[in-house]
Amino acid sequence: MTNPAYQAAVAAFTRLYRYQHLAAIAGWDQAAMMPPGGNAARGAAMAELQLLMHGLLTAPALQQALQAAAQESLSDAERASLREMKRVWQSANLLPARLVEAKSLAGSRCEHAWREQRKAGDWQGFLSNFREVVQLAREEAQLLAEASGKSRYDALLDKYEPGMSSTELERIFGDVKGWLPGLIRQVMDKQAGETLVAAQGPFAVAQQRALGVEIMGLLGFDFDAGRLDVSVHPFCGGVAEDVRITTRYRDDDFMQSMMGIVHETGHARYEQRLPRELAHLPVGQARSMGIHESQSLSFEMQLGRSPAFLSLIAPMVKKHLGEQPAFDAANLARMYSRVRPGFIRVDADELTYPAHVILRFEIERALIEGEIEAEDIPALWDEKMQAYLGVDTRGNYRDGCLQDIHWTDGSFGYFPSYTLGAMYAAQYFAAIRRSVPDLDARIAAGDLAPVMDWLDANIWSQASRWETGELVQRATGEALNPAHFRAHLEARYL
Amino acid sequence: MTNPAYQAAVAAFTRLYRYQHLAAIAGWDQAAMMPPGGNAARGAAMAELQLLMHGLLTAPALQQALQAAAQESLSDAERASLREMKRVWQSANLLPARLVEAKSLAGSRCEHAWREQRKAGDWQGFLSNFREVVQLAREEAQLLAEASGKSRYDALLDKYEPGMSSTELERIFGDVKGWLPGLIRQVMDKQAGETLVAAQGPFAVAQQRALGVEIMGLLGFDFDAGRLDVSVHPFCGGVAEDVRITTRYRDDDFMQSMMGIVHETGHARYEQRLPRELAHLPVGQARSMGIHESQSLSFEMQLGRSPAFLSLIAPMVKKHLGEQPAFDAANLARMYSRVRPGFIRVDADELTYPAHVILRFEIERALIEGEIEAEDIPALWDEKMQAYLGVDTRGNYRDGCLQDIHWTDGSFGYFPSYTLGAMYAAQYFAAIRRSVPDLDARIAAGDLAPVMDWLDANIWSQASRWETGELVQRATGEALNPAHFRAHLEARYL
Repeated sequence: MTNPAYQAAVAAFTRLYRYQHLAAIAGWDQAAMMPPGGNAARGAAMAELQLLMHGLLTAPALQQALQAAAQESLSDAERASLREMKRVWQSANLLPARLVEAKSLAGSRCEHAWREQRKAGDWQGFLSNFREVVQLAREEAQLLAEASGKSRYDALLDKYEPGMSSTELERIFGDVKGWLPGLIRQVMDKQAGETLVAAQGPFAVAQQRALGVEIMGLLGFDFDAGRLDVSVHPFCGGVAEDVRITTRYRDDDFMQSMMGIVHETGHARYEQRLPRELAHLPVGQARSMGIHESQSLSFEMQLGRSPAFLSLIAPMVKKHLGEQPAFDAANLARMYSRVRPGFIRVDADELTYPAHVILRFEIERALIEGEIEAEDIPALWDEKMQAYLGVDTRGNYRDGCLQDIHWTDGSFGYFPSYTLGAMYAAQYFAAIRRSVPDLDARIAAGDLAPVMDWLDANIWSQASRWETGELVQRATGEALNPAHFRAHLEARYL
Repeated sequence: MTNPAYQAAVAAFTRLYRYQHLAAIAGWDQAAMMPPGGNAARGAAMAELQLLMHGLLTAPALQQALQAAAQESLSDAERASLREMKRVWQSANLLPARLVEAKSLAGSRCEHAWREQRKAGDWQGFLSNFREVVQLAREEAQLLAEASGKSRYDALLDKYEPGMSSTELERIFGDVKGWLPGLIRQVMDKQAGETLVAAQGPFAVAQQRALGVEIMGLLGFDFDAGRLDVSVHPFCGGVAEDVRITTRYRDDDFMQSMMGIVHETGHARYEQRLPRELAHLPVGQARSMGIHESQSLSFEMQLGRSPAFLSLIAPMVKKHLGEQPAFDAANLARMYSRVRPGFIRVDADELTYPAHVILRFEIERALIEGEIEAEDIPALWDEKMQAYLGVDTRGNYRDGCLQDIHWTDGSFGYFPSYTLGAMYAAQYFAAIRRSVPDLDARIAAGDLAPVMDWLDANIWSQASRWETGELVQRATGEALNPAHFRAHLEARYL
């Protein structure tokens, strides 16, 4: 056999991929199907599977195979594959089992208590668990930093957005902070004079679902290899060969489920179009959280909320939800571009969303680097919400620093992915528009091929062949450039 | 630690139980949820999981633990648990891996081709794959027989109905053959003079489902620990803590889905009421296929098709499916007790069903013992269908010996479980009636406690604490006695 060490690593990762399949389906089931009584047994089964996957990744034979493979005569593609296998291997091997377990326990405890503490706005109660989560995250960051030579926060960031640094984020987000608050004010002034017709509910769930399914079809979702279901928190799960997206319905609001489905369909098409022959290897899997988000936001923000796309689907909205003035294309576009600074990140519009992310990035970076302590968060939160969005959050922990699940289990470094995704998406569409100047007219006419073909060729089919920076450079001809994001926002909102 | 070897075996079986959880949920998903495009990846993941479970059961350490545990000072309950662990261990360890793999491949090939061959009635084509399936099943039977001292067929039977023998089956089925054909004729003569009002469809699927859910609730199904979904072949799957039953709906027929749900709910309640603290060990799991079927048939045949139960649910049928004369209680009872000899086992009524099973038992026993060859099956089939049911199947392979999936993958020894289940159920109800003489009146009045409490105390809570013979003896005061089955049929149909 040529390259026996490389092949041994491939065999181990193939097994890992099959275990991950079971974890993904069981996880989807837990969120979308499982009755509450099944939770304890499911938890035990999932933990056993995690143990199994950890054992596979920490077996000495795999380390030896990965080391020996580096000496074999690999093709460029195989070398990229080896690079990605090593990345996965490192994430499982750099931390001692004791720390992994302590993190998991502290995170579960903090998250579990948070569910009630958030409702009660109980910041002091939260702090009593959260301090340990922060302490363990710092320990993790320290170990990862020592191994990689990165700063502590950057070492965590690398888990979600390999290759990104806080220096780069500070440059990019610093730029955004320079123009975003002013732009928000300008847009709010402009929109104050606009008339917006509100949609009249109720909207039957079956009709909302039928509308969502039709839009998924328009967007190319492959129903032969995926499903649409319901869960409390919408997500895209399952496996590349069988992608499971979810949404949630409210009978007094169709907007959230409709655009939520567009968003998850963006994630789904990325998964469905990853190169199938490499599905079992890290190199054939999605690049990063930021790139994944760039797909959902290409669908939701660049395409979905554009007047062209909304004019294309307005007849579908009317067909499923009934004729009413709110469903005219221009009004739909106004509804989906309404800017209103608010407390809650997940409810934020496209324009104010980055402010929520930048605030969190700045706080979590300082927290992990030891510049602030957990106790300092509320004051910083209030100050930054006032500065970036003009919103007063003092004393409102529930809708302030207690609102997100991410920190409760120690997922520091995740938040930037959201806004990086939005920026990548804007950069992709700038590239598409350069080669297809009449893009909006084609979208409005139902021709989505320029978008889908570009994403397919430049992102989906590339999977993890290139590191993120190179992927974006190859796709758009330049490194991440937030000017495209700004130009997009100004074009849409001014 | 007291009894360290026993505890080591328990730890291994606890892991097995968690893996089985994943297999059960992934299997349910495959049948009830998965889009077709997910099949190849699912197959690979399930095969990997099977390999893992096989590795767990064939590890030398487990064999040593089971052997050493026999020398430890175990309680009676632990000794029963050890007995059941050994049974599972043996089933995984007696066959060489080569044979397991060859059986799996030949079975898949034969079953896959059968799907088309059955439609085409292509017996010769089927034979070309089936001969190998038979050959491998005989090899398996030979190995199991050598290890157990049983006959070859009995060694296969033991996989599904531990402790049962073909001698016993011949005695029981011989008895049935003595009176069943005459009883069928008598009942058909009687029913020829009855008027039966046919139900007028269509019956909306949503209404059929709502009816099914209400009946499940009446029967005590715990929706907090289970679900009802749809699949091509109805089944009861999932895990004891989260039982997933399925049905299928036809809009021109409500009878099948309604009684199918009653049947699967019987399986489900057995699972849901198994002793939760032993769920992770074989001793806490269902006793056998025949005992499982005795639960579904207690629900479907003893309870579900009784005039008392049908009078109880007639108002629910009318509520969900609309008022019509066919839904009067007495007419429902006539509909659900209509006897018509036919070609197809799964469509057979309660009275003719045993004839289908006895025929298959006789043929498969002779086949495994080498008294006949696969080529001899059609002639035997025709002869026995004529003798037992007065039905002419000559030349009709599709609705004759090609109709079942069981033989295609080598599941010889399974068929008797169906009729054993029917007989056990009749024997349980005879016992219940002895202590509750007004059982029918109580059922008609909506009081199902006498049935549920008896099954709970005597079967569900006992799991695999006793071997089947002792379980039945303890529950009913006697060994399996087909006289109860005959008395039940005569009481209901004459």
